[in-house]
Amino acid sequence: MKVDSILASRTKFMTASEIRELLKWITSDVISFGGGLPDPSTFPVDEISKVVAYVLEAYPQRALQYGSTEGVAELREELAKFVDSYAGIKARPENVFITVGSQEALELLGRVFIDQGDVIITENPTYIAALQAWRVYQPRLIGIPMDEHGMVVEKLEDTIRKLKAEGAKIKFIYTIPTAQNPSGLTMSQERRKYLLEIAEKYDLLIVEDDPYSYFLFEPIQVTPIKTLDRSGRVIYLSTASKIFAPGFRLGWVIADKEILDWFNLAKQSLNLHTSTFAQYVLLEGLRRNIILKNLPRVKELYRRKRDAMLTALETYMPPGVSWTKPSGGMFIWATVPPHIDTRELLVTAITKYKVAFVPGHGFSVDQSLTNAMRLNFTYPTFEQIEEGIRRLAMAIKSA
Amino acid sequence: MKVDSILASRTKFMTASEIRELLKWITSDVISFGGGLPDPSTFPVDEISKVVAYVLEAYPQRALQYGSTEGVAELREELAKFVDSYAGIKARPENVFITVGSQEALELLGRVFIDQGDVIITENPTYIAALQAWRVYQPRLIGIPMDEHGMVVEKLEDTIRKLKAEGAKIKFIYTIPTAQNPSGLTMSQERRKYLLEIAEKYDLLIVEDDPYSYFLFEPIQVTPIKTLDRSGRVIYLSTASKIFAPGFRLGWVIADKEILDWFNLAKQSLNLHTSTFAQYVLLEGLRRNIILKNLPRVKELYRRKRDAMLTALETYMPPGVSWTKPSGGMFIWATVPPHIDTRELLVTAITKYKVAFVPGHGFSVDQSLTNAMRLNFTYPTFEQIEEGIRRLAMAIKSA
Repeated sequence: MKVDSILASRTKFMTASEIRELLKWITSDVISFGGGLPDPSTFPVDEISKVVAYVLEAYPQRALQYGSTEGVAELREELAKFVDSYAGIKARPENVFITVGSQEALELLGRVFIDQGDVIITENPTYIAALQAWRVYQPRLIGIPMDEHGMVVEKLEDTIRKLKAEGAKIKFIYTIPTAQNPSGLTMSQERRKYLLEIAEKYDLLIVEDDPYSYFLFEPIQVTPIKTLDRSGRVIYLSTASKIFAPGFRLGWVIADKEILDWFNLAKQSLNLHTSTFAQYVLLEGLRRNIILKNLPRVKELYRRKRDAMLTALETYMPPGVSWTKPSGGMFIWATVPPHIDTRELLVTAITKYKVAFVPGHGFSVDQSLTNAMRLNFTYPTFEQIEEGIRRLAMAIKSA
Repeated sequence: MKVDSILASRTKFMTASEIRELLKWITSDVISFGGGLPDPSTFPVDEISKVVAYVLEAYPQRALQYGSTEGVAELREELAKFVDSYAGIKARPENVFITVGSQEALELLGRVFIDQGDVIITENPTYIAALQAWRVYQPRLIGIPMDEHGMVVEKLEDTIRKLKAEGAKIKFIYTIPTAQNPSGLTMSQERRKYLLEIAEKYDLLIVEDDPYSYFLFEPIQVTPIKTLDRSGRVIYLSTASKIFAPGFRLGWVIADKEILDWFNLAKQSLNLHTSTFAQYVLLEGLRRNIILKNLPRVKELYRRKRDAMLTALETYMPPGVSWTKPSGGMFIWATVPPHIDTRELLVTAITKYKVAFVPGHGFSVDQSLTNAMRLNFTYPTFEQIEEGIRRLAMAIKSA
């Protein structure tokens, strides 16, 4: 069979995740800063074992049966309480929608909203997998630069005005305001308010992706943009992957019911519903407060790992290399001299120096950030952080 | 926010699952033949409890961590053994791909292969959720009629010739050859061979959806079409939902690696990967042979439920009503006199007679089967089967 000849035309816009392709190359002697994995020592294994046993004893027939597309009702109720107590977000259970990780929420956004040529505005750089999910739908991606206080919202209004003048259809503004992926930077509260004002003025949706506000290491006073939303224009995404365990593939969306009704319709075709069993495990986890009890320990570990990586960067990097000081999250964004293309550097880094990272170009809307890279500090051990940055510095010096 | 005004154009092709909409209406006094749920008494709860405890003790950090898009390597290996021992399908682990239920496999087929106007050939009637998943991609759906030996393959070649003459791009032939949904009918071995011959002659893909061959009640000698496939043109789908538990949302695809590489790329955007934890639970379930040990008991229960429903239909139905004699699976397909539209009948049936079913039109490619319905016999109890069919007969008589 010649499969190539019968592919849909959209299929050519599907691009492999460089992160996932990269993971395949890596042999056991390579230190990887490439993935975005939590430290597995943070998984609350004992508590999860108890919860799982309880779920199968207390209501096995519900937990093992098919469920509704929007998610298990009790979990949506419990998550509504959780986002209120944790982040001050007021939501009713009908405003909560369960997804197969927050990646599925990104897909649902593309599927429900994006026609070819529609405009999506993002921070630049932004989360590589969001760009990838949306590229299949062929939007025009517009990036807004960042500084140490997050997206430079001051430049946003001008951009929107120009786009509107061109007749562009702007579908939403995508932001990871807290401890952003890949930069680790956090948007100031003033800019959050300003961003929402602009969205209101031009009647635009905001997608607030928030996997990392659980891991804010600095005393920055910010609230989710969703807490300021009075007109139902903020679609808030979060996930259990970093605070509970990624292996359950559980994410949630907090949004207006009208939007969630469309997500529901779209998700029916994708996979009917998210694993009922996994949802009941998270439900009991929330009821027993496992997440919030576990969080301080995890946050402290990740803060120390960030500091270890910053120290190693200071110690080993040659002049001409700079990097962000992440206020939280899982990543540092490093910039090397402009003559170095980090895609080429990666090959040498892996094969000769046995260290890996994600090249920066995939995080930029126009693939233009060729002399940057994303470094993960949560998964490697302290020893690997020190040794890996030493190796990376050698690779950069050799380039 | 006016959400309607910013939806993508494809979103209007998303239609609600009538089955799932229906489930919402149903109060506790309604007997439902509407869903497609397994009998929850068939879930091997004790064995699953042991397996889950073992997984969390033996390798918690792998089971709770992120995984690869194609699925857990050991599970793919174990499933390759399972499909060989169970169904005689020869596959290497690289030919096995794990999905979020087999619904996700249907979505992947649409996403990777279907452009607007492409032709998909199916049995008529066929599985409602497959049609729904593909309609978003706007194919031209062509139905081939069925008789008691399944799809009338004799009519297929003519149809293909006409389509080719029109310049149509046929993307695949979709069949549920064994204990079909919604008819319960099984394609004869001769027709399976003939179908494959035609596919080879016209160089077409076959999608063989096989959730029900585990529940074939009659001594019909058939093998999956995939076992006859020498040119890698059969994409075989199956699921753990009916033989283990639906709550884990686990399905698998057996196909040529080239096709699975495209599925991999597409799935990365959809949800990165299927729940690692659920995959390890199924892996240990397979290693302990839980499925095959449990199956005879489940099959016998479903056979008795089918017989109970056939008896009740004989007892209560008025003249002018006919139904299939399913050779297996979970469903009976009933036809009422042509003047009755089963969509209208359903409203009376639920509100006045307290019984529910799925109207037939959604199962036909052109929505033309307005005087038919699908009846599920696996989920209701024996008492509900008898009483529900009695009520349904009254509703039909009153129409």
